[in-house]
Amino acid sequence: MPPTGDDAGGDSGRATPDRAASRPGYGALAAELAARDAVGFVAVGDRFDDDLRYLTRFSGPDRAWPFVYAGEEAFLCAPALFAEQAREEFAGTVLTQGDLAADAAGAQAAELLAEHAGLDGGTVLVPASLPHDAAVYLERAGFALESTDAVAEARRVKSAWEVERLREVQAAAQAGMARAETVLAEAAVRETDDRLVHEGVPVTTEYLRREVNAVLGAEGVSDAHNTVVAAGGACADLHFYGDVPVHADETVLLDVSPRGPEGYYGDLTRTFVVDSSGGWDRRAYLAVESAQDMAFDAIEAGAPAESVHEEGAAEIVAYGFGAGADLDAGFTHGVGHGVGVSLHEAPSLTASEELRVGDVVTVEPGVYDPEKGGVRIEDLVVVTEDGFENLTDYPRSSTPRVRR
Amino acid sequence: MPPTGDDAGGDSGRATPDRAASRPGYGALAAELAARDAVGFVAVGDRFDDDLRYLTRFSGPDRAWPFVYAGEEAFLCAPALFAEQAREEFAGTVLTQGDLAADAAGAQAAELLAEHAGLDGGTVLVPASLPHDAAVYLERAGFALESTDAVAEARRVKSAWEVERLREVQAAAQAGMARAETVLAEAAVRETDDRLVHEGVPVTTEYLRREVNAVLGAEGVSDAHNTVVAAGGACADLHFYGDVPVHADETVLLDVSPRGPEGYYGDLTRTFVVDSSGGWDRRAYLAVESAQDMAFDAIEAGAPAESVHEEGAAEIVAYGFGAGADLDAGFTHGVGHGVGVSLHEAPSLTASEELRVGDVVTVEPGVYDPEKGGVRIEDLVVVTEDGFENLTDYPRSSTPRVRR
Repeated sequence: MPPTGDDAGGDSGRATPDRAASRPGYGALAAELAARDAVGFVAVGDRFDDDLRYLTRFSGPDRAWPFVYAGEEAFLCAPALFAEQAREEFAGTVLTQGDLAADAAGAQAAELLAEHAGLDGGTVLVPASLPHDAAVYLERAGFALESTDAVAEARRVKSAWEVERLREVQAAAQAGMARAETVLAEAAVRETDDRLVHEGVPVTTEYLRREVNAVLGAEGVSDAHNTVVAAGGACADLHFYGDVPVHADETVLLDVSPRGPEGYYGDLTRTFVVDSSGGWDRRAYLAVESAQDMAFDAIEAGAPAESVHEEGAAEIVAYGFGAGADLDAGFTHGVGHGVGVSLHEAPSLTASEELRVGDVVTVEPGVYDPEKGGVRIEDLVVVTEDGFENLTDYPRSSTPRVRR
Repeated sequence: MPPTGDDAGGDSGRATPDRAASRPGYGALAAELAARDAVGFVAVGDRFDDDLRYLTRFSGPDRAWPFVYAGEEAFLCAPALFAEQAREEFAGTVLTQGDLAADAAGAQAAELLAEHAGLDGGTVLVPASLPHDAAVYLERAGFALESTDAVAEARRVKSAWEVERLREVQAAAQAGMARAETVLAEAAVRETDDRLVHEGVPVTTEYLRREVNAVLGAEGVSDAHNTVVAAGGACADLHFYGDVPVHADETVLLDVSPRGPEGYYGDLTRTFVVDSSGGWDRRAYLAVESAQDMAFDAIEAGAPAESVHEEGAAEIVAYGFGAGADLDAGFTHGVGHGVGVSLHEAPSLTASEELRVGDVVTVEPGVYDPEKGGVRIEDLVVVTEDGFENLTDYPRSSTPRVRR
């Protein structure tokens, strides 16, 4: 939806970042440093590094730059052309390449530790994925490196600000889904081959994908590269990106997971059948719908995450379908995963760890058969003190309707 | 543009990947291994790793996986859920996590070297950005690591297949630009404040960005997160993502750089003024247009890349504007950069290395003044035997026209 207000910014329909509320705080990092007797934390990466996006809110360049946390102070070094943007987006100290002697991002991290945090050695915590050359620079500068997953842990539990960003981008996903559902509802069925035809054009999965992605663009969602649209047997290919015709009697599965302007992902799946004969697809739909309900019921802070999967899988088995990653047909994946600045993050709903208040996870049971089709329904929910809140507001119906 | 043909696939408007033509070949890697007396090459990364995208064409999961080249054979290990996709996209040997004993991607790389390439030690070449934990696994398995930039070098010179992908995504960028230019041409000017109004809605930079990104989505371009739209003084902020009103007498700068379905980027910038009074912006426009012409003239295989920048910068200075990264106003950036599966890659047009046939670069001079506005014009060109071919087909005009 384009801006409708008279002024730019707050009235434009795009969230104006509330910088203070967006800041993650470094309490978890500080606690980890203390617990591990470490002097600092270093991460090096580019704009595609989700840990850095979370830690700094800086959307950054597409080449490596360093983040350093030491002495309760946070630093980053940005290319000069990005300095203004970094100072707007990041709460800590921004240095530019001209401020430092070192050129390489890892060497800059070592220089920040030594010259700006005043350290002359000690243990530095790093993500396991720290670039190898950065590790070498830090070790040469006299720091001992140890891996930490403190950032992934800190990212898991979402703040109120983060939950609102997730809700916003989920709403954009819903708008994209509504467009695809409307196309399916309005399409004519060609008698010769049961093919769907929309505004004179035979419908394919790529046709639907473009319809969805155009709406995502208009909704201010910048990144739509994850939109999966499949039909018929292709629904059993969980990452189907091909282009196949869409027929009236087959399942059409749409998995819409755009990234919002602040870096958070939505994740929404619905499955439609335009003209069901009430056979396999109907039974699969009932199984999946019921499995999602059972999975919802299992969500509770303190419960093992995997119990959510187990409840969903048991329900699908009760409907006579198989469940297991090794099967060719049935429920072949886990029932959900955490979502944040990464599309897949902790917690996995097949892991044994306990759910926490603030976990944001998908709940997405599915049943697939390469010979018959595939059905998946996916919502995005946040774990609360009382159970969960569904961040999704989209009907679960297999018959497409016009939605405007 | 949605599919118009009667059949899916080739008629849909989306390029059907020609798998054989898309394959990069590993000749450059093999030569580098021989020259450095190394037994293999290893890269580890996720779907956002552009080297891996180039080497494998596998669009992959958002968690780390390994690629190994040894004994003239290429391997990757994918999560089981991605095995089918990997086998479609990658020409080499695909193993899945179930085929290997190791869990971590770096340990899987070591296992691939030892068990599948039959190596029990020796020097392995890796990108400098190899994750630190992968380096540790490889060293523990008895391999000595040395960095190589052979992949970046190999990526530089584009094949005919790659040039066609770049041309296609540049055409999508042009369609997005045409939409924004049309909005500007159709907009009314509100007398009270000189503000543009389109279909009753006051135009902002975010309004234009959404119009562009909606078209990119409809064009089958999945990733539009780089679209920059600025107006007036904000044009001097090269990475402006904010939302400001657009007035008739100020510069409107649009930089559209979507990623196509095969991973290649387009890059197109135009600047418009709806109702110019012929002052600063007109002079800046003439300077930039002329600077682009001079830069074009300097493009020649064998010429130092930086000579292209120097010719463009000299022309801007001849028009009375400054040129230099330290200036507040003037031409404050380099005139261009390589484009491929990364938006910014080799060669930089401020580097001393020689241009080669097959280099694909932007040519994008600009003049900025935070008090007055900013003008940039950017085309994407490929260096040829005879000079260059412009992959862009979009008018250079500062007065917006309706383009449909």
